[in-house]
Amino acid sequence: MNLEKIEHIGIAVKNLREAEEKFTELFQATPYKREVVESEGVETSFYRIGESKIELLAAINEQSPITKFIEKRGEGIHHMAFDVKNIYQEMERMQERGFQLISPEPKRGADNKLVCFLHPRSANGVLVELCQEIKD
Amino acid sequence: MNLEKIEHIGIAVKNLREAEEKFTELFQATPYKREVVESEGVETSFYRIGESKIELLAAINEQSPITKFIEKRGEGIHHMAFDVKNIYQEMERMQERGFQLISPEPKRGADNKLVCFLHPRSANGVLVELCQEIKD
Repeated sequence: MNLEKIEHIGIAVKNLREAEEKFTELFQATPYKREVVESEGVETSFYRIGESKIELLAAINEQSPITKFIEKRGEGIHHMAFDVKNIYQEMERMQERGFQLISPEPKRGADNKLVCFLHPRSANGVLVELCQEIKD
Repeated sequence: MNLEKIEHIGIAVKNLREAEEKFTELFQATPYKREVVESEGVETSFYRIGESKIELLAAINEQSPITKFIEKRGEGIHHMAFDVKNIYQEMERMQERGFQLISPEPKRGADNKLVCFLHPRSANGVLVELCQEIKD
Protein backbone atom coordinates (compact mmCIF):
# COMPACT_ATOMS: atom_id res chain seq x y z
CA MET A 1 0.00 0.00 0.00
CA ASN A 2 1.57 3.25 -1.20
CA LEU A 3 -0.93 5.49 0.64
CA GLU A 4 -0.31 4.60 4.25
CA LYS A 5 -3.32 6.11 5.98
CA ILE A 6 -5.82 8.95 5.80
CA GLU A 7 -3.60 11.72 7.08
CA HIS A 8 -6.46 14.19 7.38
CA ILE A 9 -9.79 15.36 6.05
CA GLY A 10 -9.98 19.07 5.23
CA ILE A 11 -13.25 20.91 5.92
CA ALA A 12 -13.93 24.39 4.48
CA VAL A 13 -15.64 26.68 7.01
CA LYS A 14 -16.65 30.33 7.00
CA ASN A 15 -15.70 31.22 10.54
CA LEU A 16 -12.92 29.24 12.21
CA ARG A 17 -13.85 30.09 15.81
CA GLU A 18 -17.52 29.18 15.37
CA ALA A 19 -16.63 25.98 13.53
CA GLU A 20 -14.18 25.05 16.29
CA GLU A 21 -16.97 25.34 18.85
CA LYS A 22 -19.16 23.04 16.77
CA PHE A 23 -16.46 20.43 16.12
CA THR A 24 -15.29 20.53 19.73
CA GLU A 25 -18.85 19.47 20.64
CA LEU A 26 -18.85 16.80 17.93
CA PHE A 27 -15.52 15.28 18.92
CA GLN A 28 -15.56 16.15 22.63
CA ALA A 29 -12.00 17.27 22.10
CA THR A 30 -10.32 20.60 21.45
CA PRO A 31 -8.06 21.41 18.49
CA TYR A 32 -4.42 20.60 19.21
CA LYS A 33 -3.18 23.48 17.11
CA ARG A 34 -3.98 26.40 14.88
CA GLU A 35 -1.78 27.46 12.01
CA VAL A 36 -1.89 30.10 9.30
CA VAL A 37 -0.70 28.97 5.86
CA GLU A 38 -0.11 32.26 4.03
CA SER A 39 0.67 30.61 0.68
CA GLU A 40 -2.82 29.05 0.62
CA GLY A 41 -4.60 32.00 2.20
CA VAL A 42 -5.99 29.92 5.07
CA GLU A 43 -6.08 29.62 8.81
CA THR A 44 -6.32 26.02 9.93
CA SER A 45 -7.27 24.19 13.09
CA PHE A 46 -6.48 20.51 13.76
CA TYR A 47 -8.15 17.73 15.74
CA ARG A 48 -6.81 14.21 16.21
CA ILE A 49 -9.18 11.29 15.55
CA GLY A 50 -7.47 7.90 15.83
CA GLU A 51 -4.49 7.83 13.45
CA SER A 52 -5.96 10.67 11.36
CA LYS A 53 -6.71 14.38 11.77
CA ILE A 54 -9.53 16.71 10.91
CA GLU A 55 -8.36 20.06 9.52
CA LEU A 56 -10.77 23.00 9.58
CA LEU A 57 -9.86 25.59 6.92
CA ALA A 58 -11.03 29.19 6.86
CA ALA A 59 -10.02 31.74 4.22
CA ILE A 60 -7.93 34.71 5.35
CA ASN A 61 -8.33 36.61 2.08
CA GLU A 62 -10.51 36.82 -1.03
CA GLN A 63 -7.96 34.99 -3.21
CA SER A 64 -7.95 31.91 -1.00
CA PRO A 65 -9.13 28.68 -2.67
CA ILE A 66 -11.41 28.32 0.35
CA THR A 67 -13.19 31.61 -0.47
CA LYS A 68 -13.90 30.28 -3.96
CA PHE A 69 -14.94 26.85 -2.72
CA ILE A 70 -17.45 28.27 -0.23
CA GLU A 71 -18.87 30.73 -2.78
CA LYS A 72 -19.48 27.86 -5.17
CA ARG A 73 -20.51 24.99 -2.88
CA GLY A 74 -20.93 26.31 0.65
CA GLU A 75 -19.16 24.92 3.69
CA GLY A 76 -18.27 21.23 3.74
CA ILE A 77 -15.62 18.62 3.10
CA HIS A 78 -12.94 20.15 0.87
CA HIS A 79 -10.27 17.46 0.42
CA MET A 80 -8.87 14.21 1.70
CA ALA A 81 -5.17 13.74 2.34
CA PHE A 82 -3.04 10.60 2.39
CA ASP A 83 0.36 10.03 3.93
CA VAL A 84 3.09 8.96 1.54
CA LYS A 85 6.72 8.09 2.22
CA ASN A 86 8.19 9.66 -0.92
CA ILE A 87 6.06 12.42 -2.40
CA TYR A 88 8.22 12.87 -5.51
CA GLN A 89 7.93 9.21 -6.38
CA GLU A 90 4.17 9.22 -5.76
CA MET A 91 3.68 12.35 -7.89
CA GLU A 92 5.48 10.65 -10.74
CA ARG A 93 3.44 7.49 -10.33
CA MET A 94 0.15 9.43 -10.17
CA GLN A 95 0.94 11.24 -13.40
CA GLU A 96 1.81 7.99 -15.12
CA ARG A 97 -1.54 6.58 -14.00
CA GLY A 98 -3.49 9.49 -15.50
CA PHE A 99 -4.00 11.70 -12.44
CA GLN A 100 -3.50 15.41 -13.03
CA LEU A 101 -1.26 17.26 -10.55
CA ILE A 102 -2.35 20.77 -9.58
CA SER A 103 1.26 21.93 -9.21
CA PRO A 104 4.37 20.33 -10.76
CA GLU A 105 6.34 20.57 -7.50
CA PRO A 106 5.28 19.85 -3.92
CA LYS A 107 4.60 22.86 -1.68
CA ARG A 108 5.09 23.39 2.02
CA GLY A 109 1.65 22.91 3.62
CA ALA A 110 0.27 23.08 7.15
CA ASP A 111 1.48 20.80 9.94
CA ASN A 112 5.07 20.43 8.72
CA LYS A 113 4.30 18.64 5.45
CA LEU A 114 5.30 18.66 1.83
CA VAL A 115 2.03 18.51 -0.07
CA CYS A 116 0.70 18.07 -3.58
CA PHE A 117 -2.89 18.00 -4.86
CA LEU A 118 -4.44 15.87 -7.59
CA HIS A 119 -7.07 17.67 -9.66
CA PRO A 120 -10.63 16.57 -8.77
CA ARG A 121 -11.47 16.23 -12.45
CA SER A 122 -9.02 13.34 -12.63
CA ALA A 123 -10.29 11.65 -9.45
CA ASN A 124 -14.11 11.46 -9.55
CA GLY A 125 -14.59 14.95 -8.15
CA VAL A 126 -12.35 14.33 -5.13
CA LEU A 127 -9.57 16.78 -4.33
CA VAL A 128 -6.84 14.36 -3.21
CA GLU A 129 -3.81 15.63 -1.29
CA LEU A 130 -0.60 13.63 -0.98
CA CYS A 131 1.56 14.62 1.95
CA GLN A 132 4.92 13.68 3.32
CA GLU A 133 6.15 14.73 6.73
CA ILE A 134 9.20 16.98 6.66
CA LYS A 135 11.92 15.48 8.82
CA ASP A 136 14.20 18.24 10.06
CA MET B 1 -12.66 10.59 22.79
CA ASN B 2 -16.17 9.40 21.93
CA LEU B 3 -15.48 9.11 18.18
CA GLU B 4 -12.80 6.46 18.03
CA LYS B 5 -11.53 6.82 14.48
CA ILE B 6 -12.53 7.75 10.96
CA GLU B 7 -14.40 4.59 10.06
CA HIS B 8 -14.72 5.55 6.40
CA ILE B 9 -15.06 8.32 3.86
CA GLY B 10 -17.97 7.93 1.44
CA ILE B 11 -17.48 9.07 -2.16
CA ALA B 12 -20.41 9.50 -4.55
CA VAL B 13 -19.64 8.22 -8.05
CA LYS B 14 -21.67 7.82 -11.23
CA ASN B 15 -20.33 4.48 -12.40
CA LEU B 16 -19.03 2.07 -9.75
CA ARG B 17 -16.91 -0.06 -12.10
CA GLU B 18 -15.17 2.92 -13.69
CA ALA B 19 -14.57 4.55 -10.31
CA GLU B 20 -13.13 1.28 -8.97
CA GLU B 21 -10.60 1.27 -11.80
CA LYS B 22 -9.57 4.83 -10.93
CA PHE B 23 -9.31 4.26 -7.17
CA THR B 24 -7.51 0.96 -7.65
CA GLU B 25 -4.85 2.98 -9.50
CA LEU B 26 -4.84 5.63 -6.79
CA PHE B 27 -4.50 3.18 -3.90
CA GLN B 28 -2.65 0.41 -5.72
CA ALA B 29 -5.10 -1.92 -4.03
CA THR B 30 -8.36 -3.54 -5.04
CA PRO B 31 -11.69 -3.21 -3.20
CA TYR B 32 -12.09 -5.88 -0.52
CA LYS B 33 -15.83 -6.07 -1.04
CA ARG B 34 -18.89 -4.84 -2.87
CA GLU B 35 -22.28 -4.61 -1.27
CA VAL B 36 -25.74 -3.43 -2.31
CA VAL B 37 -27.67 -1.51 0.36
CA GLU B 38 -31.24 -1.60 -0.96
CA SER B 39 -32.61 0.70 1.77
CA GLU B 40 -30.27 3.49 0.62
CA GLY B 41 -30.50 2.72 -3.08
CA VAL B 42 -26.75 2.25 -3.45
CA GLU B 43 -24.11 -0.21 -4.51
CA THR B 44 -20.91 0.23 -2.53
CA SER B 45 -17.31 -0.79 -2.89
CA PHE B 46 -14.75 -0.71 -0.04
CA TYR B 47 -10.99 -0.16 0.17
CA ARG B 48 -8.89 -0.35 3.34
CA ILE B 49 -6.49 2.52 4.04
CA GLY B 50 -4.74 2.19 7.40
CA GLU B 51 -7.38 1.89 10.13
CA SER B 52 -10.03 3.49 7.88
CA LYS B 53 -11.92 2.62 4.71
CA ILE B 54 -12.91 4.39 1.54
CA GLU B 55 -16.46 3.60 0.42
CA LEU B 56 -17.44 4.29 -3.18
CA LEU B 57 -21.19 4.79 -3.54
CA ALA B 58 -23.16 4.54 -6.78
CA ALA B 59 -26.94 4.96 -7.05
CA ILE B 60 -28.98 1.93 -8.11
CA ASN B 61 -32.21 3.92 -8.65
CA GLU B 62 -33.50 7.44 -9.19
CA GLN B 63 -34.67 7.81 -5.59
CA SER B 64 -31.23 7.16 -4.14
CA PRO B 65 -29.72 10.04 -2.13
CA ILE B 66 -26.64 9.56 -4.34
CA THR B 67 -28.67 10.33 -7.50
CA LYS B 68 -29.76 13.62 -5.90
CA PHE B 69 -26.29 14.45 -4.60
CA ILE B 70 -24.66 13.96 -8.00
CA GLU B 71 -27.38 15.96 -9.80
CA LYS B 72 -26.79 18.84 -7.42
CA ARG B 73 -23.01 18.76 -6.85
CA GLY B 74 -21.44 16.23 -9.18
CA GLU B 75 -19.26 13.35 -8.05
CA GLY B 76 -17.15 13.81 -4.93
CA ILE B 77 -16.85 13.26 -1.19
CA HIS B 78 -20.32 12.59 0.18
CA HIS B 79 -19.91 11.92 3.91
CA MET B 80 -17.46 11.08 6.67
CA ALA B 81 -18.17 8.32 9.17
CA PHE B 82 -16.89 7.81 12.70
CA ASP B 83 -16.85 4.66 14.78
CA VAL B 84 -18.75 4.84 18.07
CA LYS B 85 -19.14 2.21 20.79
CA ASN B 86 -22.77 2.98 21.65
CA ILE B 87 -24.72 4.59 18.85
CA TYR B 88 -27.87 5.21 20.93
CA GLN B 89 -25.89 7.07 23.57
CA GLU B 90 -24.05 9.12 20.92
CA MET B 91 -27.29 10.00 19.11
CA GLU B 92 -28.72 11.29 22.39
CA ARG B 93 -25.59 13.28 23.12
CA MET B 94 -25.48 14.76 19.60
CA GLN B 95 -29.06 15.94 19.89
CA GLU B 96 -28.37 17.52 23.28
CA ARG B 97 -25.41 19.36 21.71
CA GLY B 98 -27.52 20.84 18.92
CA PHE B 99 -26.82 18.41 16.09
CA GLN B 100 -29.83 17.40 14.03
CA LEU B 101 -30.34 13.67 13.39
CA ILE B 102 -31.61 12.69 9.93
CA SER B 103 -33.53 9.71 11.35
CA PRO B 104 -34.68 9.20 14.95
CA GLU B 105 -33.49 5.57 15.01
CA PRO B 106 -30.29 4.01 13.66
CA LYS B 107 -30.58 2.01 10.43
CA ARG B 108 -28.73 -1.02 9.19
CA GLY B 109 -26.04 0.27 6.80
CA ALA B 110 -23.35 -1.32 4.66
CA ASP B 111 -20.51 -3.40 6.12
CA ASN B 112 -22.44 -4.80 9.10
CA LYS B 113 -23.06 -1.50 10.87
CA LEU B 114 -25.82 0.34 12.68
CA VAL B 115 -25.66 3.87 11.29
CA CYS B 116 -27.13 7.29 11.85
CA PHE B 117 -26.51 10.58 10.00
CA LEU B 118 -26.28 14.12 11.36
CA HIS B 119 -27.77 16.75 9.08
CA PRO B 120 -25.10 18.79 7.25
CA ARG B 121 -26.92 22.01 8.12
CA SER B 122 -26.08 21.38 11.78
CA ALA B 123 -22.42 20.49 11.10
CA ASN B 124 -20.87 23.12 8.79
CA GLY B 125 -22.09 21.45 5.62
CA VAL B 126 -20.59 18.06 6.52
CA LEU B 127 -22.78 14.95 6.36
CA VAL B 128 -21.51 13.08 9.44
CA GLU B 129 -22.28 9.40 9.91
CA LEU B 130 -22.01 7.64 13.25
CA CYS B 131 -21.61 3.91 13.02
CA GLN B 132 -21.43 1.01 15.39
CA GLU B 133 -20.39 -2.47 14.37
CA ILE B 134 -23.10 -5.07 14.81
CA LYS B 135 -21.77 -7.93 16.91
CA ASP B 136 -23.73 -11.10 16.09
